[in-house]
Amino acid sequence: MDGAALLLVLLVAAVPLSAAGDAHPGYSDEGTCTVGADLRRLEEGGGRGRIIDITHAYVPDLPAFATGAVTGPVVRLKESMADGSEYNLSELRMECHAGTHVDAPGHINQAHFAAGLDVDTLDLDVLNGPALLVDVPRDTNITAEVMKFLNIPRGVRRVLFRTLNTDRKLMWRKGGDMSYVGFTEDGAQWLVDNTDIKLIGVDGLSVAAFDYLISAHVVFFKTPDIIPVEGLKLDDIEAGIYMLHCLPLRLVGAEGAPTRCILIK
Amino acid sequence: MDGAALLLVLLVAAVPLSAAGDAHPGYSDEGTCTVGADLRRLEEGGGRGRIIDITHAYVPDLPAFATGAVTGPVVRLKESMADGSEYNLSELRMECHAGTHVDAPGHINQAHFAAGLDVDTLDLDVLNGPALLVDVPRDTNITAEVMKFLNIPRGVRRVLFRTLNTDRKLMWRKGGDMSYVGFTEDGAQWLVDNTDIKLIGVDGLSVAAFDYLISAHVVFFKTPDIIPVEGLKLDDIEAGIYMLHCLPLRLVGAEGAPTRCILIK
Repeated sequence: MDGAALLLVLLVAAVPLSAAGDAHPGYSDEGTCTVGADLRRLEEGGGRGRIIDITHAYVPDLPAFATGAVTGPVVRLKESMADGSEYNLSELRMECHAGTHVDAPGHINQAHFAAGLDVDTLDLDVLNGPALLVDVPRDTNITAEVMKFLNIPRGVRRVLFRTLNTDRKLMWRKGGDMSYVGFTEDGAQWLVDNTDIKLIGVDGLSVAAFDYLISAHVVFFKTPDIIPVEGLKLDDIEAGIYMLHCLPLRLVGAEGAPTRCILIK
Repeated sequence: MDGAALLLVLLVAAVPLSAAGDAHPGYSDEGTCTVGADLRRLEEGGGRGRIIDITHAYVPDLPAFATGAVTGPVVRLKESMADGSEYNLSELRMECHAGTHVDAPGHINQAHFAAGLDVDTLDLDVLNGPALLVDVPRDTNITAEVMKFLNIPRGVRRVLFRTLNTDRKLMWRKGGDMSYVGFTEDGAQWLVDNTDIKLIGVDGLSVAAFDYLISAHVVFFKTPDIIPVEGLKLDDIEAGIYMLHCLPLRLVGAEGAPTRCILIK
């Protein structure tokens, strides 16, 4: 039971919160003191854990998917108070697979794309929930052998794989480096055949190593129920279990989307 | 205590999860069965609540900020498997204040903008935590009188204000409608002076009613610690307390950003 649910149980007993249709449209007057006190308690008393941002900031020199390539400018000021406007107003322009982002099934599978399986169809129940952060041996791609070694139990649905990419700070460097590590085709197949993992987080430009770029994606997207989350910032976090919240933009029609992801400890 | 924290307490007693530097780089072998069982229990046994998406999908006919205006195309396919590419690749282009989005302090305050107070500086501890969804009387903007009537207790830091905009389905209509309701200048001032609210969620195009567009924003942004979240989808949800997760893109330099927001009950 999370904090909100727990509080709600407490509140249902103590406070007659009104529904939208009741006389007082907000919530019942007699309950306000309790609502305030209970929300304060929830804020202060361990109602939430420590939040860890595992998203890379979108900056113009974020590495892009080619040797030496950068994303380039992402944000442009369209209206500017410095130029006499009453407000500042920015415009955003980027590839949907830049920085920390999710892949939708239509990214490398045309049947899924044609069926409308865009990022807006990705399951929020997969994108949010308990996740395991594991360390991959630093001298290898994520092969079948490595997956076997990691021995991730059945029932684990979300895994963030920290690799040599984090140690090499590849996502912090200006310019793409195609020597990042990722899944091989047999590693992808092993995951599909032997685990219940539905969300695969990686700390490199892609879930697939460059030599297996298409083939590993093809394996993951045979069925549309696996969500790769790529370009995560996994520096300086202990391996273990966290609550993951990964919330991509609802871009209708897009086969990928930038996202913000956090862990709560 | 949320589910992850609760589980962690259970686990610390039962399972010696290894830190990143230990012999097995992932997690201890002897703990794997317990990790799997505990994660399964967390998934199935009320470890998380029901997720409610309160974000509007980004579609080309989403209302924009002018009478009859729409956002227009947001996503464009840059590489297409239908045209022989090995993958589909989308590009995203939009104003940072379209659809469900957050304002940063630099949006209507040039001193904050010059000081670099962009969306990437917004506090994740404000954007994530317990929130109160309240119903505003349906015949009014959010004035000082309405704020007094709502009587939101001290200690409440996040409030989602549901208004006539939801009943009129304004965010679902093609084309902007400047008759949406929002905060007046005196409503904004009352909130700043008499509450601890730091996150203000609204169901219209802006946190400020059109006639108070600049003046209400100016009040909210006198100090840079209030976060307006605009264009929320608050249809068909009971008023009450939820856990809110609002995760905007980390757009360095931008004074606003599209975001995905969910409630967990």
